[in-house]
Amino acid sequence: MAIEILSKTRVGCADGGYYHRCKHFSKSTGTDMIFGLYLPSCHGSSTSTKEQQPTPILFWLSGLTCDDTNFANKAGSRAFNRAEKENIAIVMPDTSPRGENVANVDSYDLGIGAGFYIDATVEPYKANYSMYSYITKELPALLENEFDKLGSCGLKAITGHSMGGHGALTIALKNQNEWLSVSAFSPICNPTKVPWGEKAFTAYFGSVECGKAHDATCLLTEPTVYDEILIDQGTADEFLENQLSTDIFSKHATKVGQNVTINMRDGFDHSYHFIAAFIEDHVQFHGSKLRAKLEKLQSK
Amino acid sequence: MAIEILSKTRVGCADGGYYHRCKHFSKSTGTDMIFGLYLPSCHGSSTSTKEQQPTPILFWLSGLTCDDTNFANKAGSRAFNRAEKENIAIVMPDTSPRGENVANVDSYDLGIGAGFYIDATVEPYKANYSMYSYITKELPALLENEFDKLGSCGLKAITGHSMGGHGALTIALKNQNEWLSVSAFSPICNPTKVPWGEKAFTAYFGSVECGKAHDATCLLTEPTVYDEILIDQGTADEFLENQLSTDIFSKHATKVGQNVTINMRDGFDHSYHFIAAFIEDHVQFHGSKLRAKLEKLQSK
Repeated sequence: MAIEILSKTRVGCADGGYYHRCKHFSKSTGTDMIFGLYLPSCHGSSTSTKEQQPTPILFWLSGLTCDDTNFANKAGSRAFNRAEKENIAIVMPDTSPRGENVANVDSYDLGIGAGFYIDATVEPYKANYSMYSYITKELPALLENEFDKLGSCGLKAITGHSMGGHGALTIALKNQNEWLSVSAFSPICNPTKVPWGEKAFTAYFGSVECGKAHDATCLLTEPTVYDEILIDQGTADEFLENQLSTDIFSKHATKVGQNVTINMRDGFDHSYHFIAAFIEDHVQFHGSKLRAKLEKLQSK
Repeated sequence: MAIEILSKTRVGCADGGYYHRCKHFSKSTGTDMIFGLYLPSCHGSSTSTKEQQPTPILFWLSGLTCDDTNFANKAGSRAFNRAEKENIAIVMPDTSPRGENVANVDSYDLGIGAGFYIDATVEPYKANYSMYSYITKELPALLENEFDKLGSCGLKAITGHSMGGHGALTIALKNQNEWLSVSAFSPICNPTKVPWGEKAFTAYFGSVECGKAHDATCLLTEPTVYDEILIDQGTADEFLENQLSTDIFSKHATKVGQNVTINMRDGFDHSYHFIAAFIEDHVQFHGSKLRAKLEKLQSK
């Protein structure tokens, strides 16, 4: 088997599903990668696989400094509990390649823990930092192959936090045929114009200019296939003013005619306490769309 | 002020309360202590303090290796969200004194992080390890004095996990006039008969025999004031067989005529994933009793 199950833990609610930590060798990054995976109790059962339909899946992309475990430990219980009700899975990838041979710097916002969901094109990052390929191609294929067609037939949605919110928005905007719905918590909406993005794109691409191909505001040039993009943002977020550009993205979306719902959450900061408070809304948002698509597939 | 607020974070749900980390010097332990505190939005408002009634509070006692943050980060969101609905506060103390001058050993189940909610009587632990006095006397008085009579008038309930479940059960059994209700997750029910308790009591009291005064099974000699003691226990708990004695406690309670509800949760382990999955039930269990008492006080 291409995947090693490191652990399997019952989570969320009585008679619910299991949270797995899974390890595999990634061709994209040239390293071992670990991801978290919540499989609802219906997965693999006769109920859910009626007529061999796959279980839908929500991708969660974490932010700077995180690995595959932060979301599961700090917001997982509320997310998994809701995912169980929606009959959907959640996958929680790492935020970068890791290992002794992986290029790194002594910085929380570059290198390990800060892959920015792009494929680096310059040395020393080029060798391993291919998180865009990993998330958009390799991991979906792996999940389909190793977990009963999980997320296939277009039953994939994507969300994330901060750098992961940037990842979710840009990946969904660049691959509109691949993802059914997209949302984000406190996303970096216009990275080419803020310190986090400038630093990352300069290091990974050699110029900020090249980062425009991975900038949600730059990518949003016309209405998308998504009838609604959902964003939650805390008003007491310490990075709101200098790094996130929520206002700019919102105004730009209005201008191009894209429907974006931005819930400004009074008094909430940038932490997982914020994510945990509203993750159920996002799981439900994606769950309703994923289940509607599944029902459509089943009725064919 | 006797308390320094280290941080204040909005948590749980929209328009809910705040999670605080509070630092103060403890006379009991002779050290600085930090505790977590969730105050619901009603606390201090005219709605909740109608006729100057205090906000009820639930004490959460954590297990081995934990400090004041584990519960808040890993099970807090579901607990706080429920506490907000119940209009109750939650306090999350540390599990032991800490500091350079505090006696310690290189062991996860003794010394720092393993105070066992007792007052040590022998050296070198005698000087600082007085978690029983801290939890039963000093901390309640501090909360009453510093946070608008928080938890006064008998509006206190107690719960905890593993070593903290042992703490909750023994403290409630030894002080039946002080606590309104008690529950536990995966408690050490009969510590004088298992390795964790034998090691701790020998070190802190000089003998396992002395530990009988802090052993829930030994303390339960007749029906208590509590109409129901609620316990949740995972069936896949790696410590169930050798450390927790759930069966012994259950049989003993039946024998002496004490009503104990033990929910054996299929497939759950000893981790915070388990606690998070069922914490809402416990907050609701205590909340309903605390609010009933509050209403009784208000109607006088």
